[in-house]
This record gives sequence, structure tokens and C-alpha cells, in this order.
Amino acid sequence: MTGYDDWLAERAAGRAEAGLVRRLFASDTAGPMIDLAGNDYLGLARDPRVVAGATKAAEAYGAGAGASRLVTGTLSVHDQLERALADFTGSASALVFSTGYHANLSTVSVLADADTLIVSDAHVHASLIDACRLSRGSVAVVGHNDVGAVEDALRSRTKPRALVLVESIYSVLGDAAPLAELATLCARHDALLVVDEAHGLGVCGPEGRGLAHQAGLAGSPHVVLTATLSKSLGSQGGVVLASEAVREHLVNTARPFIFDTGLAPAAAGAALAALDVVLEEPHRVARVGQVARLLAEACGVAAADGAVLAVAMPGPREAVAAVERAAEQGVRIGCFRPPSTPDGISRLRLTAHAHLTDDELLRAHAVLSGLR
Amino acid sequence: MTGYDDWLAERAAGRAEAGLVRRLFASDTAGPMIDLAGNDYLGLARDPRVVAGATKAAEAYGAGAGASRLVTGTLSVHDQLERALADFTGSASALVFSTGYHANLSTVSVLADADTLIVSDAHVHASLIDACRLSRGSVAVVGHNDVGAVEDALRSRTKPRALVLVESIYSVLGDAAPLAELATLCARHDALLVVDEAHGLGVCGPEGRGLAHQAGLAGSPHVVLTATLSKSLGSQGGVVLASEAVREHLVNTARPFIFDTGLAPAAAGAALAALDVVLEEPHRVARVGQVARLLAEACGVAAADGAVLAVAMPGPREAVAAVERAAEQGVRIGCFRPPSTPDGISRLRLTAHAHLTDDELLRAHAVLSGLR
Repeated sequence: MTGYDDWLAERAAGRAEAGLVRRLFASDTAGPMIDLAGNDYLGLARDPRVVAGATKAAEAYGAGAGASRLVTGTLSVHDQLERALADFTGSASALVFSTGYHANLSTVSVLADADTLIVSDAHVHASLIDACRLSRGSVAVVGHNDVGAVEDALRSRTKPRALVLVESIYSVLGDAAPLAELATLCARHDALLVVDEAHGLGVCGPEGRGLAHQAGLAGSPHVVLTATLSKSLGSQGGVVLASEAVREHLVNTARPFIFDTGLAPAAAGAALAALDVVLEEPHRVARVGQVARLLAEACGVAAADGAVLAVAMPGPREAVAAVERAAEQGVRIGCFRPPSTPDGISRLRLTAHAHLTDDELLRAHAVLSGLR
Repeated sequence: MTGYDDWLAERAAGRAEAGLVRRLFASDTAGPMIDLAGNDYLGLARDPRVVAGATKAAEAYGAGAGASRLVTGTLSVHDQLERALADFTGSASALVFSTGYHANLSTVSVLADADTLIVSDAHVHASLIDACRLSRGSVAVVGHNDVGAVEDALRSRTKPRALVLVESIYSVLGDAAPLAELATLCARHDALLVVDEAHGLGVCGPEGRGLAHQAGLAGSPHVVLTATLSKSLGSQGGVVLASEAVREHLVNTARPFIFDTGLAPAAAGAALAALDVVLEEPHRVARVGQVARLLAEACGVAAADGAVLAVAMPGPREAVAAVERAAEQGVRIGCFRPPSTPDGISRLRLTAHAHLTDDELLRAHAVLSGLR
């Protein structure tokens, strides 16, 4: 028995007592369910064209990149994907990572030094919070979507540089950031706006080009976008979309880029194929919005800004009971309970998917209405 | 022109002046080269069976996992891979991540709290250094492979818990950690030994089961192993190999696990197929050792403990010149220059590969001998 054994056992007991034990289960063996929990918004992870993008890239380039992007791990499929992502979002350049988490860790850690104030929305993703810890910047957390608080922080700062961190569509509440306002503010105060488009890319904006694009910020010199290839694009990986100067700075200084193996060819090929499908079939993007509106109606909440719906519940017990009741009826939904919620409120979390059939949507509607 | 533009331009100019600009190039379009730089030690990234493992998994499970492992992103292929990796290394359990970087970030950040002393070897990988920053522990950096210094730090500690961080085969110098000694020390002082097997798995130990296995530490309660699937196994991803209690603690508390999309099925399928090949063809592991010995002889340095060879050079200029001379003769080698070296010494870095033909090996030998 080591000291660590006791410590781990205590922690496990604490989780059990609080009813907060998380367990993994293989979703493919759990029986057919209507999925309102995952992030494959456009239904592309299992699209034959996207799967073919993955398999062809594995056959052409190998199962792995074999080294850091800076050694021999850059392959033409990375170049093609970066060009396509930059074009799609209207950005000057793109740099692809093995996960969206790394895109955020890298961006913030190399753009914020000891002379930088980081102004972070209270609801940003765990990866941006960890990124702040990795950076040398001073961090000011401001109230969720509180533009006035961002302005106050920027105006009264003593550091020469400032970085503002937001998500375009927030992963827990599903609401949108006021990007145009924030970008104007950043331009006025000589700050960079970092927008995580993880839940915006492929869902918001014209042809799914993202909420920043919709807000007229494509290619803006004051804006750096990050995104994941593992949600709308049905693959794995992350990307930073920014100026050539920011990209070069990342390539030269971002440790989670330099000291990581390049993204697997299959993941790059899948994302590349997914971008083609998104452009060829814009009805998928429209359909996500339609499904989100119908789900919101079934739950009795306001329409979402993207594909993520949050339904406040009286408490964690009620949230878990609702998830279980839905599952018994063949509908998988998620929930957030403290300490995973930024404001202590338990919520059901539902995601809209373009590939739900009308029948599935009707069934989901009935089940969700019954939860109220 | 923003303040950031000036700042980025200054930094770029500083790199250019120091001759330290890093540029990406697509290695597949650079012409045929003998690769002594990448980490695909066993030549499995392009092995047809491993590529088939990737394509079959993409076809069966989709191009991406679609969600966090805790939501719907766990698939049976993850379960199979975790079982196979635990069996291969003789560990009680395994947990797979989207990259080895995340395996290290997760392990250290959840096992070190404010009551923990982290004793870190001066040469550990960037991901372990970042992991220390993310954790709440106090960090003591000790001299490279200095067992006495580790003992002093453990003995004089004031924190109830302690974590010791090492690599089994160090990525820069290529030398081995004295694992058995360190494990005894950790057991005596009630500390956990975290061993990054990134460069040991598939290369060291019986059938490539790793240096910890060779040191008799498989399944030891005082040892946590981390490794990557992107080197010997030719794929992408990372893994933590530990007790069930550590695995459960990671699943419940590790942010880079909880808030990241599950590893892509193709990467999991490729790593699973690679493990089969390693077990079926143990001669690959033996061949890596043989190639490493021949390369060491050509370079006039001592035989390596694994597949990584470091050759000290008089200075950064000489190192770059040697890399260029080798490249002109069709041999790709790497180099480390300050500030990327832990001790300020510029070095050539060569990696041994099982799939080099005898002809390629002869050519490489001639080119390397000519560099001296």
C-alpha cells in the first residue's frame, strides 16, 4: 500500500459519495440510439466519402506521420488541408495540430508572455484555461459575454499587449459570443481576439464557414481563430487560422506543435474530404439549424445560436434522471453537473445533427417533450 | 499595424539573425532519402497490415470518434487497444489519448496536487515540463540521471506525496534511465515513478515490451508508464499504463482526456494491428538494435541504449553543415541546437530503423563515416 493508493482511494470514495463517478462505455455496442449527445453535427464521421478520405490518405501516406512536423512529419496532405481550411474560413493561413486542445494550448502559450494581459471569458473551454496556465501572461477572467467588462480590462491594463479569449459558440450553454463587438473593441485597444470556433465551424455562417466569417471577421488582422477537425468535420485534429506571421511564430515556438507527432494522414484526409462535402451539400448546414430549432421547441427553450442546446434543470439528480429516462426511450442526451458547469447550474446538453431522419426527429421530439 | 505585428516581426527577426528559423517541408515530395531522422523505428507506419488496421477501423467505426470518450466517443476499438497495450506491457490497465503529449499532461496534472513534490530529470520531454506547469505540485529539477539527487530530493521532502519523472530512453541524448534503481528508491520513499516510454516501447525489452518491462517493473504499483502510439507503433495517440485506480482517477479528473475528442478509430486500429506485427515478427525489434549499433560505429560513438543516437558537434554551425552534407548524399539526419538542447551542446540526432535494407545501411554508413 503506497501513500498514493490511500490518496487515490479517498478521491474515488469522494466521487462515489457525491454520485459523480464517470464511467466509459463503448457507444457502438450500446444498441441503436438517437444521438443527441455527440459533436458529429453534420453526420460526416460515418459519411462514405469522408471515410474514403481517411482510408485513401492512410494508403498513400501511411498510418502515422512518423515524426514531428518539423522533422519529417509534414506531408503534402497537411499542406492541402491547411490550404483548404484557410480558404474555407477566409483566413490568410492555417496550421494543423493533432487535437483542437493543442491548437488552443499553443495559441495562447506563444502569444501571451509576461508582458501580456489575457482577458478570458468565464465560460471558455478547459483547453483555453489550461493554455492560460501554460502561458506567462496575467489572466483576468471576466463575466460571460460581458463586453463592458472586457473593455474595462483592456482599457485599464498596464501590460503592453492583450489577448481576449472567447468561444464563438460556447460548449456548455450553446450561446454565441458577440464577436463583431469584441473585435471592434480589440482593434480599438490594440488587442488580439482569439476565437475558438470548435462549435461554430461547419454549423454557423454562410456554408458553415463559422461565426467569425458571419460576423465579417474573416482574415481580420486582430483575430486568431482556433477550431477542431473532430466535430463538424467528423475527424480528429485541431487548427489555428491566422496571419502568416502568427503561423510562423507557432511553427517556431509552440511546444505542443514542435514536440508532437504530426496529425495522422487518415485524420487529415478525412477532414479534407469533409470540407468538400460541406461545400457540395450546403443543405446539411441548414438542416442542423432546423433540427436545433425543433429540439429547442421540444425542450421549451429558446432557439440556439448553433447546434448546442442547454436546458437548465432544478438539480444534478433531476438532470441525471432525465438523461436516464431519455436513454430508456432510445434517445441519448448529455448533462453537465457541478463541478463541470461554469455557474453551478445542472443542465441537460443536447446537440443537433443534420443526419437525423424526420422519423428520428419526431421520436426525439416526443421523448424530449415528455421530460418536461 | 497592431502592437502584435511589431512584436511578432521582432521575434521573427531575432530568429533569422540567430540562424534559428524553422520551416516546414513536405517530406513525401522531397525525393527518396534514407530516413535516419523520423521515429517510425520498426517501419510500421507504411506496413500494409498496419495501414489495413487503420482503414478497416475507419470503415467500421467512422473517420472520427465524434465526442469525448466520456460522452459517446468511446468505441470498442478503444477497449480492444487498451486491453492489448496493457497485456503487451504487463500493466494492469491502459487509457488511450489522442496524443502522447496529452498522456503526459494528464498523468502529472492529476497525480500532483499542492501536497506533492515533483522530482523531474533535467532532460525530460517538453510535454512533461508543460505537465509540471499545469499541475499544482512543487517542482524540483535534478541533474540528468542523477540517482543520488533524486534520493536527496525524496528524503528531504516536506510534501506527503512525491512523483518522479523520467524517460526510459531520452529523446535527445538517447541514453537510458536507471529504472530499476529509481523504482527501488521510489518504493522506499513512498513515491510514484512516472516513466515516459515514448522511445522505449517497441525498441527495448523482450519483444519490444519496453525498458520498464526489461527492468522487471511491469505491473509495479509504484510505476506509471506513458507512451506514444506514433513512434514504434506507426500511428497516432498516447497511452497511460497503470493500476486500475490510476486509470479511474484519470478518467474522472484529467482535463486533456475529459475535454478532448476520443482517438480516431483509424489511429486506434493501426496501433492495434502494429502490436500484432511486433509480436509476430520479433526480428524487427532485434534489427533496430543491430542498425543502431552499426550507425553508432559509423559515427564513432558508443552504442545506444535504444534507437536514438546523439553525436556531439563542436557548435551549431558544424551541426547544420553536417546535416546538409548528409542530405546532399541522400541521408536525412536531424540535429539539436541550443536552445533545444538541455545542456547547450549541439548534436546530430540519428534514429535507427528496422526496415533499412542492407544496401541502405551500407550507404548510410559510408555517408556518416564521411561526416567525421
